[in-house]
Amino acid sequence: MPAETEVALERASASHFHDHLLSDRAANIKQSAVRDVFDISMQSSLVSLAGGNPYLQSLPLDRLGDTASKLISEHGLEALQYGGGQGTLELRRQICEVMAAEGITDALPENVIVTAGSQSAQDVAAKVFCNPGDVILVEDPTYVGALNTFEAYQVDAQAVPMDDDGLIPDELERRIAELQDEGKSIKMLYTIPSFNNPSGITLSRERRQRIADICKAHAILILEDNPYGLLRFDDEVFLPLRADNPDDVIYTGSFSKIFGPGLRIGWALVPAHLQRKFYLASEAVILCPPTLNQMLLSAYLREYDWKAQIDTYRALYKERCEAMLVALEQHMPDGVSWTRPAGGFFVWVTLPEDINTYPLLQKAIDAGVVFIPGAAFSPSDEPSHNLRLAFSAVSGDEIAEGVRRLAPVLQEAIEAR
Amino acid sequence: MPAETEVALERASASHFHDHLLSDRAANIKQSAVRDVFDISMQSSLVSLAGGNPYLQSLPLDRLGDTASKLISEHGLEALQYGGGQGTLELRRQICEVMAAEGITDALPENVIVTAGSQSAQDVAAKVFCNPGDVILVEDPTYVGALNTFEAYQVDAQAVPMDDDGLIPDELERRIAELQDEGKSIKMLYTIPSFNNPSGITLSRERRQRIADICKAHAILILEDNPYGLLRFDDEVFLPLRADNPDDVIYTGSFSKIFGPGLRIGWALVPAHLQRKFYLASEAVILCPPTLNQMLLSAYLREYDWKAQIDTYRALYKERCEAMLVALEQHMPDGVSWTRPAGGFFVWVTLPEDINTYPLLQKAIDAGVVFIPGAAFSPSDEPSHNLRLAFSAVSGDEIAEGVRRLAPVLQEAIEAR
Repeated sequence: MPAETEVALERASASHFHDHLLSDRAANIKQSAVRDVFDISMQSSLVSLAGGNPYLQSLPLDRLGDTASKLISEHGLEALQYGGGQGTLELRRQICEVMAAEGITDALPENVIVTAGSQSAQDVAAKVFCNPGDVILVEDPTYVGALNTFEAYQVDAQAVPMDDDGLIPDELERRIAELQDEGKSIKMLYTIPSFNNPSGITLSRERRQRIADICKAHAILILEDNPYGLLRFDDEVFLPLRADNPDDVIYTGSFSKIFGPGLRIGWALVPAHLQRKFYLASEAVILCPPTLNQMLLSAYLREYDWKAQIDTYRALYKERCEAMLVALEQHMPDGVSWTRPAGGFFVWVTLPEDINTYPLLQKAIDAGVVFIPGAAFSPSDEPSHNLRLAFSAVSGDEIAEGVRRLAPVLQEAIEAR
Repeated sequence: MPAETEVALERASASHFHDHLLSDRAANIKQSAVRDVFDISMQSSLVSLAGGNPYLQSLPLDRLGDTASKLISEHGLEALQYGGGQGTLELRRQICEVMAAEGITDALPENVIVTAGSQSAQDVAAKVFCNPGDVILVEDPTYVGALNTFEAYQVDAQAVPMDDDGLIPDELERRIAELQDEGKSIKMLYTIPSFNNPSGITLSRERRQRIADICKAHAILILEDNPYGLLRFDDEVFLPLRADNPDDVIYTGSFSKIFGPGLRIGWALVPAHLQRKFYLASEAVILCPPTLNQMLLSAYLREYDWKAQIDTYRALYKERCEAMLVALEQHMPDGVSWTRPAGGFFVWVTLPEDINTYPLLQKAIDAGVVFIPGAAFSPSDEPSHNLRLAFSAVSGDEIAEGVRRLAPVLQEAIEAR
């Protein structure tokens, strides 16, 4: 037996040697379908309507380079050193200003915990509150990254029905009653009320307090994820659930969409009575958030017109969203419908119920366009007749071309029924 | 009742409203004693021998500022954007070169996972492998951050006896047998074999393979934490356990000590057959490591003489360690002994067994010096007659002054018995 074969055999046997060591939760850790598509969508011949990357071209990169340079040369001993586990006080103060722009006016820096992106805040929330089998209520569809994070803690993610105005309060009550009858322990409602990823749907203003009241009545915490909140297309403001419910909502925000995701800085605003547990759990995972990144963001929020930058983003994404809606109107076959978002990055497309969009992905790639099949965004394992289109990362012309390429793939699927 | 009181009462009642929602593991999430002291030790009148901060003054900050500036102005669209969950390929290749300098010559970039500091890699390891109640064997004393991370997963951290040559192989075998007799499931041995934090002790070369063989025989993974490995004071090389045991060791490394901790970039080198689970679990927590930080490190490793910088650090820490040993020799009363580290940041001081060092901390602060009481670094809840002194962050003169201030505090405790 050649040495190489011997080594290979040894490795193959070793590959099962540690399987029994895996934790129960490890069985729940799986690849995100979004990530499956991530590599494919980098191919330049394809139009990618898959990834929800923000469009960073409008950032003042030269000036930001100067800021970073000055920061490292003049304050490098601080910027490259360990910092406090909760994040710098300056950034936490500034985060309160950002949240004030959202309508949360009573946030205190001591209740803000800076995290490695808001996903890390979701991880901490699941860790602190959920035993295996505990329920987190979610929208269906919802953010795939949160589903993965919850499942890694063996959380039972349960969908609550929604319509074009978001979660349906009566359905929420009904679902809570059902689950409680089954003896389930419901810990949280995870919701992206504004410009939901992936659906683009926004919870109506009328329903917001009702949803909060229902959760409060059942002692269910709300985990409100609001990365797109400032990226609304019109002037209509949707107050976060946190605004009027400071003791009952863990609010997570992010600089990924209003600045850039490469810094991996998000935050949680935590009710005062839960702050300490949340902070210590976060510290146990990352020790402290990166100091350099926090100081760069602080300089940006201090020295730049960050609100004007958000206005630039809003105008850009609004234009792209309109380009997508126009193209859908023009090209989509009968039987296909879609959402009309008031902000954010995504349009959610619905096909006739008996069509599974997952097998259509390869056909779409052959036709030169990429999307994310709807199944990725659901806690259920059922096939999905939806798909997500992102308009954030590509130009209006590319969006039109992508939708034009997608249309015959969907048409064929509808005709083939 | 005034409105303010009403609000306060409401808040107070709310503070218990969500306690029943906490997960079982939340009870295990607690404040690190190191962090308790972190704030105190910032007071400028005190000599802090507490924090293991690296000394960054020798980094080429001006040049690093220029590098960051160029990176953002020329490659900002990449540096500020999302990246792959495993880390950039360039940095993973370079990490293999760094590990080659440690004696690990067969590492492949596909088995490297870039994490938010190596603490985040420890978090993922506990998540992927440990059910509540599972055992991780540890040195006593060991890194407090790892203990906190493990305890957040309800891991049962069990100490293995050690001496001046590190873990004692026979004791390891004995402890494994005992725990298996008790029906415990032992998942990992967590070890810092070189220049241990906090003890400064190094596992002797003779014992290294024996320890690895014992773990292998019992199908126990080794989680080898080696942040200080390159910071040895002499030319004697201690091969990491991973070098000769690629299938049985999860190796974690960090740029915190060989560059700077403010970037929060560490890594895990994972056996090929465990790579996927580890990578997906890491992705579920942080989505991806910060792109800007990875690119800055890549530029540093590509364009700077990083090995010369490590030599600079080695010479610096060697000098400081010697200053501390000389001062201890000069000032410590009879009955006190200490380790003589061959690298790293820390000296471990041992007092007579019946002295608890925790109450001595306040006296030391009154005397103008800060240390970390030994109890912080032990999985047991017993009082400790040890304390940790860090020589990394302060000058030789300050070290001498700090030890001079500490001596009468210890002397008094010894005399008062």
